[in-house]
Amino acid sequence: MIVVLRIGHRIDRDKRITTHVALVARAFGAKKIFITTKDAKIEENIRSICKRFGGDFQIETGVKPKKIIQSWNGIIVHLSMYGDELEKSIKKIDTNDDILIIVGAEKVPYYFYEAADFNVSIGNQPHSEVAALPLFLDRYTKGIWSRKKFDGKIEIIPSNKGKKVISK
Amino acid sequence: MIVVLRIGHRIDRDKRITTHVALVARAFGAKKIFITTKDAKIEENIRSICKRFGGDFQIETGVKPKKIIQSWNGIIVHLSMYGDELEKSIKKIDTNDDILIIVGAEKVPYYFYEAADFNVSIGNQPHSEVAALPLFLDRYTKGIWSRKKFDGKIEIIPSNKGKKVISK
Repeated sequence: MIVVLRIGHRIDRDKRITTHVALVARAFGAKKIFITTKDAKIEENIRSICKRFGGDFQIETGVKPKKIIQSWNGIIVHLSMYGDELEKSIKKIDTNDDILIIVGAEKVPYYFYEAADFNVSIGNQPHSEVAALPLFLDRYTKGIWSRKKFDGKIEIIPSNKGKKVISK
Repeated sequence: MIVVLRIGHRIDRDKRITTHVALVARAFGAKKIFITTKDAKIEENIRSICKRFGGDFQIETGVKPKKIIQSWNGIIVHLSMYGDELEKSIKKIDTNDDILIIVGAEKVPYYFYEAADFNVSIGNQPHSEVAALPLFLDRYTKGIWSRKKFDGKIEIIPSNKGKKVISK
């Protein structure tokens, strides 16, 4: 099971970035996202998308990150531009275990670097947690996102021109 | 040459998302980003990062998208959840040509679907342009981002624990 833990979410500043992190988690194979700050609006948005587009993705906000980490039975990965190389790290991570993936907002407290079994970088340049997460999940799941079925009420049919949408 | 065209940027609502799009463009191998809305602040932010972290990435805001598209000599790709499958599309795109990659904000006018040689989806689920762009560039450049050198004043050394930073 893949679970994402989003820390340091500031409701006003990060609302769109955190929403994108949650959507990426869902689309790239995670089962659940925990967000440390309570945010009813983001819960509502994500649940509304799940209702329409399918899948059993879950969201819970207002959680205590240390509690989640301490009770986690599995591997903990923290995505960071300071972390070790992706390809090198991926080889060491046992994909049979459950995995908790921590993604920060601004400055991440040192505790999380220590708590993680693996601090992993998607390149060592500044970019985005919204980019780091799908690249990590792409490699970790060997691209399973591209074959995943969501069985939603809305289904989009890939098309080179126009929009092909099936509404059930 | 890889160039990104960000359309529909709304200064207030999209500033962080568009900044992340620009940083992703730079980190994953694009040479330049055009942003249709004039935004001096975002230009300043991105140039400041280039100064510190290196590379010759360029940013230009307040451009007319149709003018850019009409004068483009090369392939035009539009990333969209309605587009054709990534792996299928990538096989058809000649990587010897220059490529202009269009990423939209909210609703993208039909013009851009028509103007693109390829409308490409990174999965057909709702997620994020900040996620679609690096996945596309990863496949298009065959992962060149992981070996790219930026020769900046600040260099981060990959590390599983702590932060290893060289300042020149």
